[in-house]
Amino acid sequence: MNYQELLEEIAREIRSVAHRGQVADYIPALRKVPLTKFGMSLRTIDGAEFKVGDADEPFSVQSISKLFTLMLAISMVGDEIWTRCGKEPSGTKFNSLVQLEYEDGVPRNPFINAGALVVTDCVISRRGDARRTIRDYARVLSRNFALDFDFRVARSERRAGHRNAALANLLASHRRLDNPVRVVLDTYFHQCSLAMSCSDLSSAFLPLANDGFSPTLQEAVLTARQTKRINALMLTCGMYDSVGSFAYRVGLPAKSGVGGGIVAVMPRRFCAVVWSPGLDLSGNSLLGTVALERLTRATQLSVF
Amino acid sequence: MNYQELLEEIAREIRSVAHRGQVADYIPALRKVPLTKFGMSLRTIDGAEFKVGDADEPFSVQSISKLFTLMLAISMVGDEIWTRCGKEPSGTKFNSLVQLEYEDGVPRNPFINAGALVVTDCVISRRGDARRTIRDYARVLSRNFALDFDFRVARSERRAGHRNAALANLLASHRRLDNPVRVVLDTYFHQCSLAMSCSDLSSAFLPLANDGFSPTLQEAVLTARQTKRINALMLTCGMYDSVGSFAYRVGLPAKSGVGGGIVAVMPRRFCAVVWSPGLDLSGNSLLGTVALERLTRATQLSVF
Amino acid sequence: MNYQELLEEIAREIRSVAHRGQVADYIPALRKVPLTKFGMSLRTIDGAEFKVGDADEPFSVQSISKLFTLMLAISMVGDEIWTRCGKEPSGTKFNSLVQLEYEDGVPRNPFINAGALVVTDCVISRRGDARRTIRDYARVLSRNFALDFDFRVARSERRAGHRNAALANLLASHRRLDNPVRVVLDTYFHQCSLAMSCSDLSSAFLPLANDGFSPTLQEAVLTARQTKRINALMLTCGMYDSVGSFAYRVGLPAKSGVGGGIVAVMPRRFCAVVWSPGLDLSGNSLLGTVALERLTRATQLSVF
Amino acid sequence: MNYQELLEEIAREIRSVAHRGQVADYIPALRKVPLTKFGMSLRTIDGAEFKVGDADEPFSVQSISKLFTLMLAISMVGDEIWTRCGKEPSGTKFNSLVQLEYEDGVPRNPFINAGALVVTDCVISRRGDARRTIRDYARVLSRNFALDFDFRVARSERRAGHRNAALANLLASHRRLDNPVRVVLDTYFHQCSLAMSCSDLSSAFLPLANDGFSPTLQEAVLTARQTKRINALMLTCGMYDSVGSFAYRVGLPAKSGVGGGIVAVMPRRFCAVVWSPGLDLSGNSLLGTVALERLTRATQLSVF
Repeated sequence: MNYQELLEEIAREIRSVAHRGQVADYIPALRKVPLTKFGMSLRTIDGAEFKVGDADEPFSVQSISKLFTLMLAISMVGDEIWTRCGKEPSGTKFNSLVQLEYEDGVPRNPFINAGALVVTDCVISRRGDARRTIRDYARVLSRNFALDFDFRVARSERRAGHRNAALANLLASHRRLDNPVRVVLDTYFHQCSLAMSCSDLSSAFLPLANDGFSPTLQEAVLTARQTKRINALMLTCGMYDSVGSFAYRVGLPAKSGVGGGIVAVMPRRFCAVVWSPGLDLSGNSLLGTVALERLTRATQLSVF
Repeated sequence: MNYQELLEEIAREIRSVAHRGQVADYIPALRKVPLTKFGMSLRTIDGAEFKVGDADEPFSVQSISKLFTLMLAISMVGDEIWTRCGKEPSGTKFNSLVQLEYEDGVPRNPFINAGALVVTDCVISRRGDARRTIRDYARVLSRNFALDFDFRVARSERRAGHRNAALANLLASHRRLDNPVRVVLDTYFHQCSLAMSCSDLSSAFLPLANDGFSPTLQEAVLTARQTKRINALMLTCGMYDSVGSFAYRVGLPAKSGVGGGIVAVMPRRFCAVVWSPGLDLSGNSLLGTVALERLTRATQLSVF
Repeated sequence: MNYQELLEEIAREIRSVAHRGQVADYIPALRKVPLTKFGMSLRTIDGAEFKVGDADEPFSVQSISKLFTLMLAISMVGDEIWTRCGKEPSGTKFNSLVQLEYEDGVPRNPFINAGALVVTDCVISRRGDARRTIRDYARVLSRNFALDFDFRVARSERRAGHRNAALANLLASHRRLDNPVRVVLDTYFHQCSLAMSCSDLSSAFLPLANDGFSPTLQEAVLTARQTKRINALMLTCGMYDSVGSFAYRVGLPAKSGVGGGIVAVMPRRFCAVVWSPGLDLSGNSLLGTVALERLTRATQLSVF
Repeated sequence: MNYQELLEEIAREIRSVAHRGQVADYIPALRKVPLTKFGMSLRTIDGAEFKVGDADEPFSVQSISKLFTLMLAISMVGDEIWTRCGKEPSGTKFNSLVQLEYEDGVPRNPFINAGALVVTDCVISRRGDARRTIRDYARVLSRNFALDFDFRVARSERRAGHRNAALANLLASHRRLDNPVRVVLDTYFHQCSLAMSCSDLSSAFLPLANDGFSPTLQEAVLTARQTKRINALMLTCGMYDSVGSFAYRVGLPAKSGVGGGIVAVMPRRFCAVVWSPGLDLSGNSLLGTVALERLTRATQLSVF
């Protein structure tokens, strides 16, 4: 299989698609991204990278940042994190308060917003400056020391962030946060605003395809068991309300963000990252999903 | 019927009761109130007052303040308030977020916290200084120009107020607030902290027993229809989760607060206010309910 | 106040109203009732009856029958009934399964369908032939020994009764029924099919306006406390989703049925029954509510 | 890898485990199965079988039968089935009515009971005698023409089946069933009572590991796409409330039943079936899960 040719073929197909979904509009700063953007980067576990289109252009990672904080938290506190957050699909919207109210403030999994806030809280408790810790972790994993938050997006996020503020306050009312609501939200809004390219992300998350070992860093960032846990969580909880559909169409553990990025992992083969800012009704990149579907169909590589 | 003798008899009985419930503990500043406090004031619509025990000692009105803001909002905007808030029992906890999430951010009634926040928001929109407006309204209605907020309680309330902050943010995320979350919460925490005595309150709410006419002010503060509406709301939604039990045991429209006060209205007869800080499991004054039960049993005056 | 003249005036007004609501369509047998039917009967506690229009024509009492079984159950087992059924508003649809699932199969009150099924189950356990017991109770209270079930309606009800069958089975799965699901449903469908006139019903429920004493039978059918309990339940739970609106507009304890009947009680004054088959969106008689609103406005008699 | 040795080693380990979970007790007929039973059968896609312990002893397949009806329905009506049933995790108990009530009677996926009832209804609509059709399908796929329903279990199931009766009636009230509730339930209770051995089941479901092709029948019973769909559904919805945990611990698409069986699929490698009647709190076989965990750990074969 020639990955480079395949990516180029996929990019050609995508270019001709008329219906490209809707750019996320709840954060003003994200609205202006052109619908025509498309990039893809695939890295194999031997470290080779294949890329196409806007694969080097930074975009807002949004919920993909939940992977960074989860990896950080797991590497800091290990399985202790699961005393504060569940590991099962929620069956409700990513920003639902209902599940939280019924289940005494314990989020169902770390990829719904409530769970991500708890994970971020956990990182804050271990590090003096959590914002910097998270950013530096992203920098090191991607070997891109220039990447940073998009402070305009972070501010925009805070202003529009009533729902997340409701979640954080509900968590606090159940005594599920160790740090002040304000600090947790500030950290969370910043991690979501990280601006990274497909190429950055495929480097950063390649360890998930490699039993936790980073070819870039030449060291293990997670154990094999921890890596399996995260991949299992991505497959069962990583794609908002489309977990089942995505598992069927693409068949890879993956995490999406409303910035239009999707990180997908083929264990022991590759990490593929795609970016197309138009979203489907579930909030996942519409053409990003199509591109990954083409990829796994052509390569016959999926977990099923 | 000699009301004074009756109140004294009730006070005697109450004094001997051993099990007095639990003082509200979620707001630190309320915890210190002695369980032995008991006061009662009854005013007939001809303006006569009967009182007993600690009827002149101010206590924290808490949710009883929802009556002040509701009366204010209705007198300002009339039935328009019902476009922003329902008029039916919620069947859920007073601070539940579930109903709000399922019903697009419209609170079920003005006596659950979410509804009270919307009513307060409405008052803020009409007045430059809503805190002062509410306090002055309470002062005028009770003819006690010395009454004030308990700022220590208000601060305590804010620090412990994650649940209310969650509700206000959830309302904001549904675009149900016209004013900033911070301002709405600040006003709300202050109105709850109003320190008033049974005697103050029986004067303030006597118009509800008198088709909206205040004998104190010698003017109508509400129309007869508006008064009927509020009484109907109190009977069906005013006592947290014990609306049905209270209707049966006491049989009067009433509103309680976790400070241990209960305001009860016998239309065209009297307004009775009782204070005993120990609460039952629903958050209503345990002995306050007993006292009112005795009152309506002895006088045979209830709406049923 | 001349009640007869008032009823005639109300009937005249009602006759001219164009928008009369929708006849219940979920039970085929009810669909054919003409929208133009209108009857009203008012009985004062001294036994005088005033009536107008189709007050002597039998109609399907439907949920009004929940009052019969509740009165029967209370007179049989007293407060024990409240160990099996709550006394508070549910805040959910009358046929909701959600509340039941969340609260371990205990219905919130006896007027939602789940609660009525439990009450009927209780009656069945005490009497060999519950269907006959209920019918005879209705006959005796109304002094009409010719009244009977409408078996065509009962059959129709059973065929369309999937929702009630779901509720009864859910109750059984929580072990909340003592008798077989089939028997409970059969009894319930029959009690709902009772065909009675406004005049029958105002006689039957006059004790609720008279501290439990039936002027017709010249004996107490309930104690004063039991009567107060039922009136309190009607006011807080008797009108489906319009409890608050009805309390405001009419201001009387009342129970409605989808056959278009409403029974309303003015304690220590009268029992008024109205029938108009067109329903509003909550399932209450549209013009029946209007008629009762006129009645309480004109007489100035309401509980508020 | 020598599968036979591995299975024997697993069986040895399992034998020594003291805590074996609880046998399902809600169906009386299942209660008597000895906790010490343990069997396992693994078939590779080239048709070789490896087995150990009680692998040839029939047990009650229970929810594993949902796989048979789903395969049947998909092979009959294709994607049309997804117009009647969702494909996403429910986040609620397998027998919950809440999700169904909130989502207009459309079950979230075919592995919760409500979804399975809809799938069975679909099979009934296409075949005169659905019970026989399902049994014969199981017989053909497993090449065991002697297998049959356990009629005693089916009867026991019906008597204890109030919850399923509630679900079926709720579906019917939303007009989501084409056939009478009674017929759907009867078929469902029978399919659950199918008595099959590990060896039967590993033969029957081997096509799921082989892109839909049955080595036994030498023909395709599903297309490759349909097979991928079912595997994706098993991984995201097949293990009751432990989808996430099972994905992590075992990492294979799987379907369990309260009879203690688990069918697991390693795409393009094998189908493994394990039976141990003791269940964990989620209703999955406790030692069955342990055995499969050992299997995937030892072979390093899982989808992650």
